[in-house]
Amino acid sequence: MNSFGRLFRVQIFGESHGDGVGVVIDGCPAGLDVPVEDFLPDMERRKGGTQKGATPRKEDDIPIIKSGVFNGKTTGFPIMIFFENKNTRSSDYEKQRSFPRPGHADFVAHKKFGGYEDYRGGGHFSARLTTGIVAAGVIAKKLLKGISVEAKVIEIGGESDLEKGLQKAIDAKDSVGGIIECRVNGVPLGLGEPHFDSVESLIAHAMFSIPAVKGVEFGSGFAAARMFGSQHNDPIENMEGRTTTNHAGGIVGGITNGNELVFRIAVKPTASTPKEQFSLNWDTGNMEHFSVKGRHDLCVALRAPVIVEAATAIVLADLMLQEGRIPRVL
Amino acid sequence: MNSFGRLFRVQIFGESHGDGVGVVIDGCPAGLDVPVEDFLPDMERRKGGTQKGATPRKEDDIPIIKSGVFNGKTTGFPIMIFFENKNTRSSDYEKQRSFPRPGHADFVAHKKFGGYEDYRGGGHFSARLTTGIVAAGVIAKKLLKGISVEAKVIEIGGESDLEKGLQKAIDAKDSVGGIIECRVNGVPLGLGEPHFDSVESLIAHAMFSIPAVKGVEFGSGFAAARMFGSQHNDPIENMEGRTTTNHAGGIVGGITNGNELVFRIAVKPTASTPKEQFSLNWDTGNMEHFSVKGRHDLCVALRAPVIVEAATAIVLADLMLQEGRIPRVL
Amino acid sequence: MNSFGRLFRVQIFGESHGDGVGVVIDGCPAGLDVPVEDFLPDMERRKGGTQKGATPRKEDDIPIIKSGVFNGKTTGFPIMIFFENKNTRSSDYEKQRSFPRPGHADFVAHKKFGGYEDYRGGGHFSARLTTGIVAAGVIAKKLLKGISVEAKVIEIGGESDLEKGLQKAIDAKDSVGGIIECRVNGVPLGLGEPHFDSVESLIAHAMFSIPAVKGVEFGSGFAAARMFGSQHNDPIENMEGRTTTNHAGGIVGGITNGNELVFRIAVKPTASTPKEQFSLNWDTGNMEHFSVKGRHDLCVALRAPVIVEAATAIVLADLMLQEGRIPRVL
Amino acid sequence: MNSFGRLFRVQIFGESHGDGVGVVIDGCPAGLDVPVEDFLPDMERRKGGTQKGATPRKEDDIPIIKSGVFNGKTTGFPIMIFFENKNTRSSDYEKQRSFPRPGHADFVAHKKFGGYEDYRGGGHFSARLTTGIVAAGVIAKKLLKGISVEAKVIEIGGESDLEKGLQKAIDAKDSVGGIIECRVNGVPLGLGEPHFDSVESLIAHAMFSIPAVKGVEFGSGFAAARMFGSQHNDPIENMEGRTTTNHAGGIVGGITNGNELVFRIAVKPTASTPKEQFSLNWDTGNMEHFSVKGRHDLCVALRAPVIVEAATAIVLADLMLQEGRIPRVL
Repeated sequence: MNSFGRLFRVQIFGESHGDGVGVVIDGCPAGLDVPVEDFLPDMERRKGGTQKGATPRKEDDIPIIKSGVFNGKTTGFPIMIFFENKNTRSSDYEKQRSFPRPGHADFVAHKKFGGYEDYRGGGHFSARLTTGIVAAGVIAKKLLKGISVEAKVIEIGGESDLEKGLQKAIDAKDSVGGIIECRVNGVPLGLGEPHFDSVESLIAHAMFSIPAVKGVEFGSGFAAARMFGSQHNDPIENMEGRTTTNHAGGIVGGITNGNELVFRIAVKPTASTPKEQFSLNWDTGNMEHFSVKGRHDLCVALRAPVIVEAATAIVLADLMLQEGRIPRVL
Repeated sequence: MNSFGRLFRVQIFGESHGDGVGVVIDGCPAGLDVPVEDFLPDMERRKGGTQKGATPRKEDDIPIIKSGVFNGKTTGFPIMIFFENKNTRSSDYEKQRSFPRPGHADFVAHKKFGGYEDYRGGGHFSARLTTGIVAAGVIAKKLLKGISVEAKVIEIGGESDLEKGLQKAIDAKDSVGGIIECRVNGVPLGLGEPHFDSVESLIAHAMFSIPAVKGVEFGSGFAAARMFGSQHNDPIENMEGRTTTNHAGGIVGGITNGNELVFRIAVKPTASTPKEQFSLNWDTGNMEHFSVKGRHDLCVALRAPVIVEAATAIVLADLMLQEGRIPRVL
Repeated sequence: MNSFGRLFRVQIFGESHGDGVGVVIDGCPAGLDVPVEDFLPDMERRKGGTQKGATPRKEDDIPIIKSGVFNGKTTGFPIMIFFENKNTRSSDYEKQRSFPRPGHADFVAHKKFGGYEDYRGGGHFSARLTTGIVAAGVIAKKLLKGISVEAKVIEIGGESDLEKGLQKAIDAKDSVGGIIECRVNGVPLGLGEPHFDSVESLIAHAMFSIPAVKGVEFGSGFAAARMFGSQHNDPIENMEGRTTTNHAGGIVGGITNGNELVFRIAVKPTASTPKEQFSLNWDTGNMEHFSVKGRHDLCVALRAPVIVEAATAIVLADLMLQEGRIPRVL
Repeated sequence: MNSFGRLFRVQIFGESHGDGVGVVIDGCPAGLDVPVEDFLPDMERRKGGTQKGATPRKEDDIPIIKSGVFNGKTTGFPIMIFFENKNTRSSDYEKQRSFPRPGHADFVAHKKFGGYEDYRGGGHFSARLTTGIVAAGVIAKKLLKGISVEAKVIEIGGESDLEKGLQKAIDAKDSVGGIIECRVNGVPLGLGEPHFDSVESLIAHAMFSIPAVKGVEFGSGFAAARMFGSQHNDPIENMEGRTTTNHAGGIVGGITNGNELVFRIAVKPTASTPKEQFSLNWDTGNMEHFSVKGRHDLCVALRAPVIVEAATAIVLADLMLQEGRIPRVL
């Protein structure tokens, strides 16, 4: 299934090389101002702009709002936003059909969907599907008044100097991965539940729905496993619950504690590396050398921060609605 | 909410120092043999047994099956399993009410639930709630014929020699965390979906519902972020999709690829450290020194593998049912 | 699946002749006073009391609250309520196994669940399962401050004089059905949505989960199909939306309009009629004469009003929570 | 929320006088042939064609499939189908804004959504939203191999002679309601569950999501309430469960029993009657006389059978998928 959320609900659809991609956002309160231009900065960030290492495929990514908005404001009904695919060059992909690309879903998609999947450019598996998530995130962020959600790449190709990390990829004629950190300020104490509705569960669920994400950690995360309890515990300083340190990343017992929300995600290197690969040719049944054609990012992590922000905002907006902290009419 | 799953659905309930804890498992196929003795090994593992560093609280943890089983077999209707709390010493906890324990949910629970929460021994936040998850896991594992789900501690207190890691805690009179690795063999190719129903999303969701988990990574995980694409991509060897390496941890595009499923979780050090702490006393409103009383594990990670297995099996059983790979009557 | 609700969520379990039946209520706000004695009047109504025509099976139906309540108040966590089965006489049922009782689920249950179903007294299909619904309804009603939910039998055996209708059944040595009307006063304008979350959809969903219900109509219902539009439309009288008539039953466009909520349900005659029947004997494969043994109501409709109220209150409490009209801490 | 279903999931969106309306169908198996022309007959039935009494608004209602279909076949991913609104004359509606139309959602929508609702032609409340449901129904019907779902009007304006009923409306210059009967043949024994997932619950839920539906009854329905048990019980004839009569409408204990599924729905008279009405003018705050302008059906029931079929097919397809009776790849 391709939907997420309980009261603020996001349903994505579309394919990389079909007519387009989009999203239906259900449960958004009425009265929210959503001019198209408010979407553009985040849409632009997702595209990677003129960033070195970003894919040369260019789409204008203008959101076409087809429903749920009247006189510039949300109506309280499902908001359908569509993004046309214009700049598709499927021919690049056709010629590689004999090689299920390693690190991509080609092989599993073919097996699972019996060959009926739209394989062009990854089809529904494509990161282009995150366009709808980013658009939903723009709306979710607007609902989170007084809350800032900010993600950025903190490491690329193993380097905290990002230029250096990218240069490493260029020099090696290879793709690289990266680490993204997200920080949320202003989140109220009390969102989430222990166990299945823990804020960690919900955010991690959303994060792993982003292609190429292979790890998520909150606060000290994996480093916490190497700390003593006396080090890791965050002393509580005052009656508002401010803590001296924030090893917990702002979540205790699955519930936000009012401190900064901090988590990191690991993004694997772009599967479409410029390097020659050696893998199965399913026409011959043998492993053979081949090179991936097409337009690809050297590092998908560069475009991911805005997606991470969007997915985070979607989770938080849903939790805020469940707690009655966002009114149904703004 | 305290439930999880789409067709194989788990609802937990209970408190650490109330009458007991339990689970309702809805959607289990009919005809499964579920003798009480089949639950005992996993229940025992959860208790930590005679393990050094495990809490001295002893419960017999005999599952009392109250519904959904007839003549020793599942009926296809909700299975309610209850575990009585017998060995509770709430007095230990009462005296600490003036200190919301750092690293615990005391403070957030009090704020969120307006003081109505059952604070004794962590109440509903307690790891005792995982009893129901383990019981559901026993049933889920039975449904996963030919699939083995095995988790173990691979690091404790930063040491891969587990005795050494635990000794470190004992010597420091402190608690430690650990890392657990789970490996699933025999999982068929084709479970999961890209995006919101990715196997990573669902497993991570389940993992972060386990108390003290602060990180989850699949395959190479965070290390993938430091690899080149040509290194990380797993070459496909044959028409069944076996890969030469398994950096993906058995999941590509959110879908199982038929190779071993591998993931790791980070468990923070037990919040109840024997060490003296300095934190808010909410009677005085000042930070003060105090020590946690009660019976606690030096390292909760030691008891977590069986919970990790259970949560994993629950996710997989649900996905198998959704794919029609497990019949409704066995 | 045996659960219902989005934020106020009810999961039932149990069998007629097993250990007992019960319910887990998840999502109930914290701070609600729930003394056991507050459950008893509705539990008593469900049992049918000393009513002529009610089953002679007597259970004390004392709710045993196993979780989610601390110091007499809800904690915000799952409330598990259990009802022990004490007065079971399975032997009555054993002897009829060769006849799948017409009007009962015996035949379909056997086929669907492969013979693994607990057939004693209807097992999980039994109206005894409504015990948990009534208990959840008691809690839901408490959440609906200022709202009264009242259902009553308005027709039995085709007679609006209920004594007469019941006497008809006694005279005919047969069972009869009935019609129940439910009226809700004080419900705020604005609950529900058009289409899938219409108040009619949700209430009807809940009503048809009650055994023996075969019809639901709102306001004028089926009679509306025989009216002119000018007759059926309810003129709006004032700025609060009060209508002169109430043919709509208080719901327009799927949304409550602030007027009284009115709907009726049709309850079929008790399937276990005292009359001899002619139906399949699955030992012989032929149709044969037989009589149902055991203790049964002449008219199950007599016991249904409190269940109708409960199911209605559950729906409304959920909608109120979704609209943020009930706080999370009371 | 505007979605429905567990594994076969339908999300609708759109407004009567906006850009268009549509649906996202998630969970459809891969490999289903879905040429556009296969949608046209049902789309045409929904429009009411040249039927006397049907609205003169004409839309071509060509489904535009934007995703989820590749080379003419479903891919297993979300299918988005869009219908453009072409023939809108909002001016008709603008002039009536001072009168919230009785029987319509104008008043409740305004109050609930704070005036942000798209009021033109009923906006999201419009029966035009059923376009998406009918499209989803076309796909669902294709999944139900060997199962026929057929609904028809059996009564209009209180007359079983439909011409006569319609003439009654024309003569009275008023609108009328009607009754629709749906019959499903070939449905396997064993779909559904007792209680919340009863087939009656799910079908009723879907039926009441159709605008103007005010009653649903299965089998004998309300008439059952006036029968004796010995009359209503359907004797079982043979080992396949065929029953001599079908008062149960093919559902016992919430589960299909393999006999014909039969249910009826009551459709209220079109709220937009040509008759003058007397109701609130919210500019003046007084009740005043007014007439509804615009293009309207004399009897919406005439267009509803195909919607009833669609909603029924959606429910059954979902249940079949849950039971593993429809494969994931066709």
